Amino acid sequence: MARPQRVQIREVGPRDGFQNEPEHIPTDDKVRLINALGRAGFTRIEVASFVRPDVIPQLADGVEVLDRIEVPDDTKLMVLVPNSKGLDNALKVRDKFHEVAIFVSASETHNKKNVNRTVDETMADNDVMAKRIVAEGLDCAAVIATSFGCPFEGKVDLGRVLDLAERFAEAGATEIGFGDTTGMCNPAYASEFFAAALDRLPGVEVTAHFHNTRGQGLANAYAALEAGCASFESSFGELGGCPVPAGSTGNIATEDLVSMFHEMGVETGLDLPRVIEAAREAQSVLGRKLTSHSIVAGPIEWAASPR
Amino acid sequence: MARPQRVQIREVGPRDGFQNEPEHIPTDDKVRLINALGRAGFTRIEVASFVRPDVIPQLADGVEVLDRIEVPDDTKLMVLVPNSKGLDNALKVRDKFHEVAIFVSASETHNKKNVNRTVDETMADNDVMAKRIVAEGLDCAAVIATSFGCPFEGKVDLGRVLDLAERFAEAGATEIGFGDTTGMCNPAYASEFFAAALDRLPGVEVTAHFHNTRGQGLANAYAALEAGCASFESSFGELGGCPVPAGSTGNIATEDLVSMFHEMGVETGLDLPRVIEAAREAQSVLGRKLTSHSIVAGPIEWAASPR
Repeated sequence: MARPQRVQIREVGPRDGFQNEPEHIPTDDKVRLINALGRAGFTRIEVASFVRPDVIPQLADGVEVLDRIEVPDDTKLMVLVPNSKGLDNALKVRDKFHEVAIFVSASETHNKKNVNRTVDETMADNDVMAKRIVAEGLDCAAVIATSFGCPFEGKVDLGRVLDLAERFAEAGATEIGFGDTTGMCNPAYASEFFAAALDRLPGVEVTAHFHNTRGQGLANAYAALEAGCASFESSFGELGGCPVPAGSTGNIATEDLVSMFHEMGVETGLDLPRVIEAAREAQSVLGRKLTSHSIVAGPIEWAASPR
Repeated sequence: MARPQRVQIREVGPRDGFQNEPEHIPTDDKVRLINALGRAGFTRIEVASFVRPDVIPQLADGVEVLDRIEVPDDTKLMVLVPNSKGLDNALKVRDKFHEVAIFVSASETHNKKNVNRTVDETMADNDVMAKRIVAEGLDCAAVIATSFGCPFEGKVDLGRVLDLAERFAEAGATEIGFGDTTGMCNPAYASEFFAAALDRLPGVEVTAHFHNTRGQGLANAYAALEAGCASFESSFGELGGCPVPAGSTGNIATEDLVSMFHEMGVETGLDLPRVIEAAREAQSVLGRKLTSHSIVAGPIEWAASPR
């Protein structure tokens, strides 16, 4: 497949990144950082999660964040809901976002440890949720976690993952995100996987969500791109990870992904210096050195006069 | 070109990595770290540089290091020489190493700033050195710095780089390393570049030396591999960089590269847990957190029970 000339990048740091931070991030800081991301040109940002605040206290201020952020009108805001109860809560503020993410783990063990239900139970709920989301006029994006491997079960069958994807599509999801939750994908498999997924899911937006657990996240993104994938998720500052198992490190860094794509001549619509600015601001809010590389080096244009 | 099933990886940390460290590393520590690398299965390690000690004091103990390390008999040790004077000094201890690296920058400006000579002057000296190295029965590996771009001149012409490579090969170099000195390569260009280089240099070992300046080093390595490249250089712990310009960050991390290749089913002959152990030991010697990812996550086999 020919390399896509333009890709979509959804910034997931404000949800997927922040939820893994051990220290509470003040709402003011979250709002400021999301506004900075909006100025960087993101048309898709995942900003909140309607989960139980006792489970993920870091995201308990989701509604306040949605209320207070100021992003351009064409920015689609996404919220994540784990179950119908979460969707009920989200729909109470239905006019504050545009996309709803629902999810399942392809691996039975990971799903059980993550949401304490079987895959079948989760999918039954997901079918109902997808239909409700579509009926509300919202975009439904389904996420399949551990798509490329499970820390508990090892390799996850490609056919099983694509069966789940098809079921989501039939229920009304217009986008399916394949999550490398604990960073077990490699570029050879990414190439094979996305060729198969794009072939199996015509008319559905196929999104790659890689982690940089052992440093090969951008190699996976490149391989997926070469296979025809044109939609990606990433996290500024390389924030994020996965609570299960402990020790899983972060998402791929948005600024590194954008830099790679721009250097290859692939358009993202993003203003890279502003993405880096937002990541540096996150670094200052969190008070520790973040692990993205562009945050240190800056865009390639700065190479001649490093700052 | 079919993906190589087996690759060579040269560990360059003890030279390319250590020389960029601001604090002096005691000789005892260098010896212990190189011995640990030998135990990890490297058959190629770059260990020393015959440069003026007032220019790079960190490597002033090169001969003592060569004297004291204990690595398996099949480990080929490489030394770097910048000019004929350096080669004279290296040949005084000729039986302590097996490979000699000579180099030039493809970019005129970078060459001038790095070694204060024109490319023509450097190449005239390199021609003489290559012949002397071969006459001594040693392997001559030529390195072309700034092969993929120059921080001062921008894009570097591919034809110019390959002309230099051919001249090195004619002078007796059996290996040509293409160095992404300041991390300006991207995977699309790596793919094009290595296809052209392998085509133009039959019978010569073509080696990729990438940096991870903006996080895409492993994507470049994957692209080079897919183009048929089967020889790589990397640095444990992601140590290294380039003194010109200041701010250029490190090489690709050996442990991340090895992990990616092993996960893809590409053999390296290396013992990954031992590579990680050596990188963690380097971290402890240098007293700061190094930037490789596998140093935190461990090999994929540890994912189920993170340490």
